[in-house]
Amino acid sequence: MFMPTLREVPSEAEIPSHQLMLRAGMMRKAMSGVYSYLPLGYRVIRKVEQIVREEMDRQGGQELLFPAIQPADIWKLTGRWEDYGGEMFRLKDRGGRELCLGPTHEELATITLRDETRSYRQLPKLVYQIQTKFRDEIRPRFGVMRAREFIMKDMYSFDRDDEGCEVSYRKMYEAYRRAFDRMGLHYIVVEAESGAIGGTHNHEFMVVSDVGEAGIVFCEACGYAASEERADAAAVPEPESAPSLAADRSHARTIATPDVRTIDDLIGFLGVSPRQMVKTMVFVADGEPVAALIRGDRDVNEVKLRRALGCASLELAAPEVIEEVTGAPVGFAGPIGLKQAITIIADPEVLHVVDGVIGANAADAHIVGVRYGVDFTAHRVEDIRIVVAGDECPRCGTPLKGARGIEVGHLFKLGTKYSSRLDARYLDEAGQERSVIMGSYGIGITRCVAAIIEEYHDADGIIWPMSVAPYHVIVLPLNTTDEQQLKVAESLHSELEKLGVEVVLDDRDERPGVKFKDADLIGFPVKVTVGARGLAQCRVEVGLRRGGQTTMVGLDEAATYVSELVRSELALLSKL
Amino acid sequence: MFMPTLREVPSEAEIPSHQLMLRAGMMRKAMSGVYSYLPLGYRVIRKVEQIVREEMDRQGGQELLFPAIQPADIWKLTGRWEDYGGEMFRLKDRGGRELCLGPTHEELATITLRDETRSYRQLPKLVYQIQTKFRDEIRPRFGVMRAREFIMKDMYSFDRDDEGCEVSYRKMYEAYRRAFDRMGLHYIVVEAESGAIGGTHNHEFMVVSDVGEAGIVFCEACGYAASEERADAAAVPEPESAPSLAADRSHARTIATPDVRTIDDLIGFLGVSPRQMVKTMVFVADGEPVAALIRGDRDVNEVKLRRALGCASLELAAPEVIEEVTGAPVGFAGPIGLKQAITIIADPEVLHVVDGVIGANAADAHIVGVRYGVDFTAHRVEDIRIVVAGDECPRCGTPLKGARGIEVGHLFKLGTKYSSRLDARYLDEAGQERSVIMGSYGIGITRCVAAIIEEYHDADGIIWPMSVAPYHVIVLPLNTTDEQQLKVAESLHSELEKLGVEVVLDDRDERPGVKFKDADLIGFPVKVTVGARGLAQCRVEVGLRRGGQTTMVGLDEAATYVSELVRSELALLSKL
Repeated sequence: MFMPTLREVPSEAEIPSHQLMLRAGMMRKAMSGVYSYLPLGYRVIRKVEQIVREEMDRQGGQELLFPAIQPADIWKLTGRWEDYGGEMFRLKDRGGRELCLGPTHEELATITLRDETRSYRQLPKLVYQIQTKFRDEIRPRFGVMRAREFIMKDMYSFDRDDEGCEVSYRKMYEAYRRAFDRMGLHYIVVEAESGAIGGTHNHEFMVVSDVGEAGIVFCEACGYAASEERADAAAVPEPESAPSLAADRSHARTIATPDVRTIDDLIGFLGVSPRQMVKTMVFVADGEPVAALIRGDRDVNEVKLRRALGCASLELAAPEVIEEVTGAPVGFAGPIGLKQAITIIADPEVLHVVDGVIGANAADAHIVGVRYGVDFTAHRVEDIRIVVAGDECPRCGTPLKGARGIEVGHLFKLGTKYSSRLDARYLDEAGQERSVIMGSYGIGITRCVAAIIEEYHDADGIIWPMSVAPYHVIVLPLNTTDEQQLKVAESLHSELEKLGVEVVLDDRDERPGVKFKDADLIGFPVKVTVGARGLAQCRVEVGLRRGGQTTMVGLDEAATYVSELVRSELALLSKL
Repeated sequence: MFMPTLREVPSEAEIPSHQLMLRAGMMRKAMSGVYSYLPLGYRVIRKVEQIVREEMDRQGGQELLFPAIQPADIWKLTGRWEDYGGEMFRLKDRGGRELCLGPTHEELATITLRDETRSYRQLPKLVYQIQTKFRDEIRPRFGVMRAREFIMKDMYSFDRDDEGCEVSYRKMYEAYRRAFDRMGLHYIVVEAESGAIGGTHNHEFMVVSDVGEAGIVFCEACGYAASEERADAAAVPEPESAPSLAADRSHARTIATPDVRTIDDLIGFLGVSPRQMVKTMVFVADGEPVAALIRGDRDVNEVKLRRALGCASLELAAPEVIEEVTGAPVGFAGPIGLKQAITIIADPEVLHVVDGVIGANAADAHIVGVRYGVDFTAHRVEDIRIVVAGDECPRCGTPLKGARGIEVGHLFKLGTKYSSRLDARYLDEAGQERSVIMGSYGIGITRCVAAIIEEYHDADGIIWPMSVAPYHVIVLPLNTTDEQQLKVAESLHSELEKLGVEVVLDDRDERPGVKFKDADLIGFPVKVTVGARGLAQCRVEVGLRRGGQTTMVGLDEAATYVSELVRSELALLSKL
């Protein structure tokens, strides 16, 4: 068997799942972000695939396979040839035709279904594939967690209308719930941003994990959950006495703040709280500078800002732009006395800052004692801040909890984004031509494997849930030069195989310690140890990887005992 | 269900399998040589994959998955970065690193196993994958028969020595035999050339078919079979009276052959047989011109010529080179009086030409009445001709038969070609470092699907063998607006599903003729027709796609009857 285990933690791996997939001989790196899956690892991958396949089929999904190579022209029609930027692997064929390696398949799915769909009677359709995808990540890391070549399940739904799409969406939600449950994963479903896929309504299935790349906030009281970049802020009431420049007297005064380089410097220098500061951030939105005002202890959520401004591109302004707009070096921007008349947008919390501090639009100077409505104002007030743990739940007001999450699944309502650009229309009952309503639903197959390991491991190795274990059982004779031990082990192995149990026999001529270490590292759920002492009493030891309990079982009943153990655990997981 | 059938034969498709895969809704073209496999087609592909997987596993194969993207450097080490030329899809990642899309995986398999192999105790190993491959064919055609993206099973064997490799090779030979038998394919196993893979010993599994791209010759008497490009010629005895320039008188005379442009012209002009002509073909081998002499009715086998000369590159000489070498325009080359002293190599048949005709190395002139050994000679005499049907079998002398074949599988002994260049070594029992002996074994999964259709179809559509049918059974109510018919059909459908039969219900509101046409086109092995007339007698009609026999079966026993039918046919195929 080809299962090259490693004793040392490979230096290339930072997180447990990456380390363990290498150490347990599940995979090897072929190049940065690109892996060969060795037999043990590929068995797990195929089990995860099969669970996902069964749940897709249960909801009426039909499996197909689109090509990995795609022509550029369909991507140009949707604008994503540009949007995908460097993340897309591009190439040319011998005829000079522009191609890409599919990072996802909305375009190809849309035109394939379009060409065969004329009537409402042909809808709805749910098609999916399980396929190798390619994304040239800037920074591939954490093994299969963020790889450049990875396996994904992607489903596409095609419906007559929004109600139909809602039905498809709910089917997928249910399929995802069942699939992740069967893998043993624990997850939070969060409202999410749509990124390059686009669309109107999205959920992510997140496995809570310290190594997760995504921030999540969630409410234990009402069940609200969202990614940090998506989470709405709780509504901030209007200030009680809505001040106006006319009604209130200004206490503003400009003070010199020499050698003050950072926010922390300023706080120390002035002896104020970060909540008294109003940061003025200059962005460039679709080529035009704008100023965003936010409380000093907060960060701007660029996704929200982009949505509030309705702009396509948004980035922080370069120092030259900031100097031009403010007339001062970087670090002294403020809403009063800007050199250019630009749009100012304020987060609602800014309206509550009393005795505030702002930049003076002059080198080494700040203005203190300011207040929104008295000393400065904004053109618009909108939620533009990143919500963090401890903030109030936008639904019920309870303080939110925070966590890190691994995104294992994603559901998108796409509306007509792709069907309108690629002319996917049908004739409805009235003979009217209408655009197909689409959805797109992904599960990162290889990422699921890593997420399972993150959830199920200890210092010794992986602890596979039965449903995704590469094998259910390992039979381990302590001493293979003892003929009796080897014979008993071999016969147990073949008995178990006959009972439909996936079983491995460790008949290597190695010390027991080496074998035990490998068995724990690879994480077989059940270990049957055949030793001289037990055999003297006609017994073998059955041990569980999870929990570590062991039981001595009579030779005659060992195979049945183990097979029942396996079967009951599988049944448990499939019922979840 | 997404199974868009077509009534018309698509203009893009020339051969039956290509036409039928499009018409039966199995696939659609995404671009030249690149296809999307729709649900029906993908089901067949997965069945073929599973048969191959089971036969690989039976022989001790271990499944893994190498990446599709590969770094250029390992290909440069084996020289194949150059050798593959335009057939390899190449690209660069965002860091400018040179990559390719794997057309095959010898390099990656070798280094992956190399890095984990130290001792003879870790050998042998048989690893395989079922994976999408990429080859930028100059002329993709015939659908999946010659595609640019296709699915292949590739296995690699790693052994201590030649004897071990022979064992692995035989295992694969047996696995291939079983796999193709189970698919219902009829094939010839031929000795083959190795092409870009290289190696010492090769067999191809060829499905005999008029649309096959490969020429095969085979002997019905002794079982000898080889591809045309590989087939050895039967030994030609030395001429009985070995003539020499001294012992025999020359009858050669030069004659004018004006306005004679072709071989046919010459034959007509001189009134001779093609077998009297000796063609002189000028090639350039590794940069040096050589002349090959062959009888007028024969063609040079360039693979044999390359092997005879031991050269790496070989191509027909350009007109300028021919003029330089012969001193005459193209069309008048001959072995007598060449302007340059180049190597002359003759096929053994040339030695038997009496009263022969050769070019005179002068415009509009030939020499007639010549004989090898009297008028001209060669530096070497070697088998360099293409063997064709009617030639004698090289083993037993019986006239060979000819056929066209679809190559569905290929077995290569690689020796140390890859292990030596990529340093894949192990320590033997004596502590000596030795190169691993390798083999490489491919099956074209998608091409098998096409080959099956080529073998199993008629004017109405596909006739699937049970083992690879997308579904075993279609249940077809003649009139879905008749509630009784629909109810009986639905209950039969669910009964059959419970019995483990793969069954489709055609509940479309279409005319019976449309449904029958689709059922025949797609090729479900068993069709259960539910109609009013049968139901009046509590019976349904069970029809076989192959042969077309129908039987009326009582409603109560219909499900059992059909499931037994399916099971017995599956058992038959799995026992082959």
